[in-house]
Amino acid sequence: MRFHRRIFLACVLALAMSFAFSSRILAAEADPLPSWNSGPAKQAILKFVQKTTDKSSPEFAPPAERIATFDNDGTLWTEHPMYTQLAFALGRIKALAPQHPKWKTTQPFKAVLDNDLEALAAAGEKGLVELVMASHTGMSTAEFEATVTDWFAKARDPRFKRSYTELAYQPMLELLAYLRANGFKTYIVSGGGVEFMRPMTEAAYGIPPEQVVGSTIKTQYEVKDGKPMLMRLPEVDFIDDKTGKPVGINKFIGRRPIAAFGNSAGDREMLEWTGAGSGARLMMLVFHDDAKREYAYGPANGLPDTKFGAFPPSLMDEAKKKGWVVISMKDDWKRVFAFEP
Amino acid sequence: MRFHRRIFLACVLALAMSFAFSSRILAAEADPLPSWNSGPAKQAILKFVQKTTDKSSPEFAPPAERIATFDNDGTLWTEHPMYTQLAFALGRIKALAPQHPKWKTTQPFKAVLDNDLEALAAAGEKGLVELVMASHTGMSTAEFEATVTDWFAKARDPRFKRSYTELAYQPMLELLAYLRANGFKTYIVSGGGVEFMRPMTEAAYGIPPEQVVGSTIKTQYEVKDGKPMLMRLPEVDFIDDKTGKPVGINKFIGRRPIAAFGNSAGDREMLEWTGAGSGARLMMLVFHDDAKREYAYGPANGLPDTKFGAFPPSLMDEAKKKGWVVISMKDDWKRVFAFEP
Repeated sequence: MRFHRRIFLACVLALAMSFAFSSRILAAEADPLPSWNSGPAKQAILKFVQKTTDKSSPEFAPPAERIATFDNDGTLWTEHPMYTQLAFALGRIKALAPQHPKWKTTQPFKAVLDNDLEALAAAGEKGLVELVMASHTGMSTAEFEATVTDWFAKARDPRFKRSYTELAYQPMLELLAYLRANGFKTYIVSGGGVEFMRPMTEAAYGIPPEQVVGSTIKTQYEVKDGKPMLMRLPEVDFIDDKTGKPVGINKFIGRRPIAAFGNSAGDREMLEWTGAGSGARLMMLVFHDDAKREYAYGPANGLPDTKFGAFPPSLMDEAKKKGWVVISMKDDWKRVFAFEP
Repeated sequence: MRFHRRIFLACVLALAMSFAFSSRILAAEADPLPSWNSGPAKQAILKFVQKTTDKSSPEFAPPAERIATFDNDGTLWTEHPMYTQLAFALGRIKALAPQHPKWKTTQPFKAVLDNDLEALAAAGEKGLVELVMASHTGMSTAEFEATVTDWFAKARDPRFKRSYTELAYQPMLELLAYLRANGFKTYIVSGGGVEFMRPMTEAAYGIPPEQVVGSTIKTQYEVKDGKPMLMRLPEVDFIDDKTGKPVGINKFIGRRPIAAFGNSAGDREMLEWTGAGSGARLMMLVFHDDAKREYAYGPANGLPDTKFGAFPPSLMDEAKKKGWVVISMKDDWKRVFAFEP
């Protein structure tokens, strides 16, 4: 009797294991990209992952070479009505204004305090750099990190009334997770400031700080009252945009990506650099053609031009010529944000 | 009969599994640092790993925070009679000399071609920078990588007649592997050039290119005959030494290490920066006091001064004051190189 009971238990165990195993197979067969509509963009992703991870494929890529780089603004999260980091800079200028009485009468600060967008635009790139330096430097890296973390916890975007990290694109979050589940190392390669992004990338995208490449300002090591700190200096160190993206990738990662994702003219060289390597490659561009669920801008395909993330017709031409896949936000994405009903 | 046979097979399987399990336990209990003598240095390592990886320890460190940084020259491999990268630079100057007839009569190149170490020393740091620029720039990153890879395959060090990567310290290789087996991410943080190190760090140390932080020169993105490339410019971008090490760690990794390993005054600030964080910390310095098996230099502890990896008395004082562990190559290491009998 006791003997049979053991046999019975062994059978139950075997059944349970077989069930667990089947469940895993079923889970593995579930759609890894549920927020993507069926279409060429989704197919391109699935096919690329299949052929680079199947050992019997002639285009198999060893795990160490599975580097995928993602632009941030407009590729992983919303960049309109302005870059999130610019919203942060303007907010900081307003918060710091009481300590700088002269800002009330000096441009470009006056424009920010008066919410005068015309005067702000007139200040141009030089004015923008002044605003960034005034809001991003002169403190230690630890103080800046605390300020950024606090800002992200409180700030809400003007249209959706959501925290900025909630404006991450759900289909791109699924893509990041799908690539990582297939042995890819996912990196951000953004024109944004490294130290503005790092406090939120792990929580927002599952990307750790050491996999964030971006623009940097110079820092300086100082020991104050026996305590070492890194002070943020008002001097640009590196601009990780346009031709700077391949430079940044080479400097920080030291490997050429086999997949790269962007959405604007600032990503052109990153995609060219990625595509110039040998073996299977995947280059994709998010095209913002969905004014209803997000925003619509080009100026490619006749959409309005923009100062934030312009996608010019020449980029569309290059994409077509080189086989880069253009993702239509309107057609390829079942939903844009996780908070949609 | 058939039924009993199944039972028998099940028992055999159970026995085999239990044996495999015990073997794993035995393997886990084997000494992970066999080339280290018993003593305070080895004990400090074992204790640090134990308390940062045991979940019940008050000093437990989550895996994401287990960042360990290693200087390269004099910490992971030999830096005498000169830095390996300087040997490479001198070799390149000689190889390139036929294309530069003027070098025969112009310093510091003449000194290199004449093997005139006195004239080379007289050229000072300015001369050194000239030699590095002439030997390290003016080509694409791909060409430079091929040159470095080729040099490492052929070059032999003058004393041991070994390839330079064979001059990695066996105890440090065991330490790297031990840390990684315990969930640590191991980084190189060296004053050496990033692109000189990356072609060999994976094979020599098991450290992938994206975990190498070092000095950089500026590069520029260019498209030649439709082919994108990064050209190496004769301009310093960043010097990853002394106060530059915390700056480089913050820029490239974006997290403060919890363990740092060095051997000279160039590593002082990296160890200070590491030690200034909260929670368990391990800071160690390799001290070269073994003229028989490797080299002996200080000038701490009365050993001769050196231009390559000086360990001044003030560093020894700071180490004692701050509880940094000084590794005596003579006393703490059972063997120095893997090729020793």
